[in-house]
Amino acid sequence: MIVEVTRRAQFCAGHRYWRPEWSPVKNREVFGACASENGHGHNYSVEVTLSGPVDPVTGMVINLTEVDRLIQAHVIECLDHKNLNMDIPELAGRIPTTEVLAEFIWDQLDPRIMTGQLIRVRVGESDDLWAEKSRDR
Amino acid sequence: MIVEVTRRAQFCAGHRYWRPEWSPVKNREVFGACASENGHGHNYSVEVTLSGPVDPVTGMVINLTEVDRLIQAHVIECLDHKNLNMDIPELAGRIPTTEVLAEFIWDQLDPRIMTGQLIRVRVGESDDLWAEKSRDR
Amino acid sequence: MIVEVTRRAQFCAGHRYWRPEWSPVKNREVFGACASENGHGHNYSVEVTLSGPVDPVTGMVINLTEVDRLIQAHVIECLDHKNLNMDIPELAGRIPTTEVLAEFIWDQLDPRIMTGQLIRVRVGESDDLWAEKSRDR
Amino acid sequence: MIVEVTRRAQFCAGHRYWRPEWSPVKNREVFGACASENGHGHNYSVEVTLSGPVDPVTGMVINLTEVDRLIQAHVIECLDHKNLNMDIPELAGRIPTTEVLAEFIWDQLDPRIMTGQLIRVRVGESDDLWAEKSRDR
Amino acid sequence: MIVEVTRRAQFCAGHRYWRPEWSPVKNREVFGACASENGHGHNYSVEVTLSGPVDPVTGMVINLTEVDRLIQAHVIECLDHKNLNMDIPELAGRIPTTEVLAEFIWDQLDPRIMTGQLIRVRVGESDDLWAEKSRDR
Amino acid sequence: MIVEVTRRAQFCAGHRYWRPEWSPVKNREVFGACASENGHGHNYSVEVTLSGPVDPVTGMVINLTEVDRLIQAHVIECLDHKNLNMDIPELAGRIPTTEVLAEFIWDQLDPRIMTGQLIRVRVGESDDLWAEKSRDR
Repeated sequence: MIVEVTRRAQFCAGHRYWRPEWSPVKNREVFGACASENGHGHNYSVEVTLSGPVDPVTGMVINLTEVDRLIQAHVIECLDHKNLNMDIPELAGRIPTTEVLAEFIWDQLDPRIMTGQLIRVRVGESDDLWAEKSRDR
Repeated sequence: MIVEVTRRAQFCAGHRYWRPEWSPVKNREVFGACASENGHGHNYSVEVTLSGPVDPVTGMVINLTEVDRLIQAHVIECLDHKNLNMDIPELAGRIPTTEVLAEFIWDQLDPRIMTGQLIRVRVGESDDLWAEKSRDR
Repeated sequence: MIVEVTRRAQFCAGHRYWRPEWSPVKNREVFGACASENGHGHNYSVEVTLSGPVDPVTGMVINLTEVDRLIQAHVIECLDHKNLNMDIPELAGRIPTTEVLAEFIWDQLDPRIMTGQLIRVRVGESDDLWAEKSRDR
Repeated sequence: MIVEVTRRAQFCAGHRYWRPEWSPVKNREVFGACASENGHGHNYSVEVTLSGPVDPVTGMVINLTEVDRLIQAHVIECLDHKNLNMDIPELAGRIPTTEVLAEFIWDQLDPRIMTGQLIRVRVGESDDLWAEKSRDR
Repeated sequence: MIVEVTRRAQFCAGHRYWRPEWSPVKNREVFGACASENGHGHNYSVEVTLSGPVDPVTGMVINLTEVDRLIQAHVIECLDHKNLNMDIPELAGRIPTTEVLAEFIWDQLDPRIMTGQLIRVRVGESDDLWAEKSRDR
Repeated sequence: MIVEVTRRAQFCAGHRYWRPEWSPVKNREVFGACASENGHGHNYSVEVTLSGPVDPVTGMVINLTEVDRLIQAHVIECLDHKNLNMDIPELAGRIPTTEVLAEFIWDQLDPRIMTGQLIRVRVGESDDLWAEKSRDR
């Protein structure tokens, strides 16, 4: 029997939406307040969902100790208390929207999950905005 | 790469569950306290999910300014601080359950979304009750 | 040793802010969207705080069964699924703001609490608005 | 038109993760703090999702009174204020993880739902951990 | 200028309300479902509030690293994943209500806080129930 | 009869804890991850509490339209989507902790409130950390 397990974690980070090849006017038109000069930031939530059969001996799809280790090493240490524009090589030159963060975290975790299958990464920037990357869409 | 983006908004409204062609006894039997004579109300949440490819230049599926404008114009202005039985022509004669509101909001937004695709509308009446209309079900 | 215990409950109700002796223009000027003609409503939370010594035998300031009975009988049955303008005799002719509800619930509970002392009633109309009536202010 | 309706309920329970055929060392290695000798516990949330056409007369997929009755009788009375290792015959000998609880609650409800179709059971052990059993996975 | 700073932490634990010198009937009458034979449990939140002048150099009442260290060492390690009736010597023979936990945590922290002053400990057993011990009451 | 009314609002901002006259080693020792070079950020909540008699005609301590106008003009426009170290002249040279923000927002609002009395400003940086400035402490 297949069950999904989701682990939520949190981090905080700073960012700015700005394309250097655009004029300030165009940046403000497209990105609004997110283009403000010295950056701002958010508390982010990240929900990582794995799917797989439940081991009849342990009752688990995957040991949460392993999930927590992966999230800590490849998401939190990477992003927490960081500036998303300046501190993350993989995001250099990209606008660090929640959509882009969902893709980035997917790419960080997917090749490293050995038990079960990563099926969804959800990243929330506030209670009113989040992005999801799923395997099958 | 396809990503889903969800925007949440809130409104408050009043309503009553009552079918005039039924006896008061039958109305109370079917609708319970929701049939109470002078109506009651709720704080509602609405979550609108769009799906599409992430624009490599902006990092966005759709500019949230556009999503917010659509939700404001076609959901919030329509429903906020309103009586759902009396103030919304499209709901006249219908019982304004969360299911019916999910369908109504879907119909308000779906034909107006030009970037990405509306894939889900979720309407919550409280922390313990919500309804979802999805494209593929 | 004195400890405070707080119990939270929830109800939903409808209301309208309207003074019949005022013109529609003045009502809208003072009450904004809350003056809308056919009423609207909210999910309310109510937090009831009692203070007293902790009984060394039971570990309790007051048995929660008793608190729940009082809140159910004198708050929830009174207000849940009701229209605050029309269904509550004590509120007739008053504008049912959160401030007025905090006073009303205080008056409902204070004379009935026999163990410990009611020290605070907090009423929330949404996550972003609440009113508190305390004993000592 | 097909809509999903979800009802959330809550219960609290105690448990311990422990396999008697394993050494204490192995139990602590696999289950960590969840193996602690005298057990611990959680507040659980359970979200039950049903899917079906919306009845044009009542505006409902299923009457919530019926959903609440089923959840109360077959989930809450069964699990609330219980020790999951010792008080639930169906869980005897199993590790009561959130995954196992999602399966158990699915099996409790699925054969009893006569209107609409059970499509998902989600069980949360905290804000940071939950498991889901869905029909189609 | 005096400011209050509050830090929230969480733990989970099991417990049972039972006085061995009482009959089972009396235990169930007083403690209800909390008397159930094999115990149950909760996710607890604890909020620790300190008050003091804001250091003009650091902008802090107290360094949170120090607060976190105290909460970790004297609250979380003590209570998390424990059975409150059996694993905590200081609670032996006491009913581990939220009131009693608020007192216990106060006594754990108050003598150890060297910067600022402990003014309030709030312990929540669920979203609907909490107890507070304050200095001045 | 005196009642307190609280309005909550939200903003997001970036910041860094760093004293230029200290060595990098000392900055990291005192401020930990908050000293990270390129800054980070948070979603903040701010709760503004006013106290006063309830107007028997309007049922209000103060018209929320007025409270919202003050919070918007003197808190949100000032802080939202800003860098707290670089964009707020009054915070120049100060470490923008939650304590300092509570004082700043108090000073922004207190002289401008003409109806009722400001009695508390609470600023939250996450669900687990907040600071409060009250009139009487």
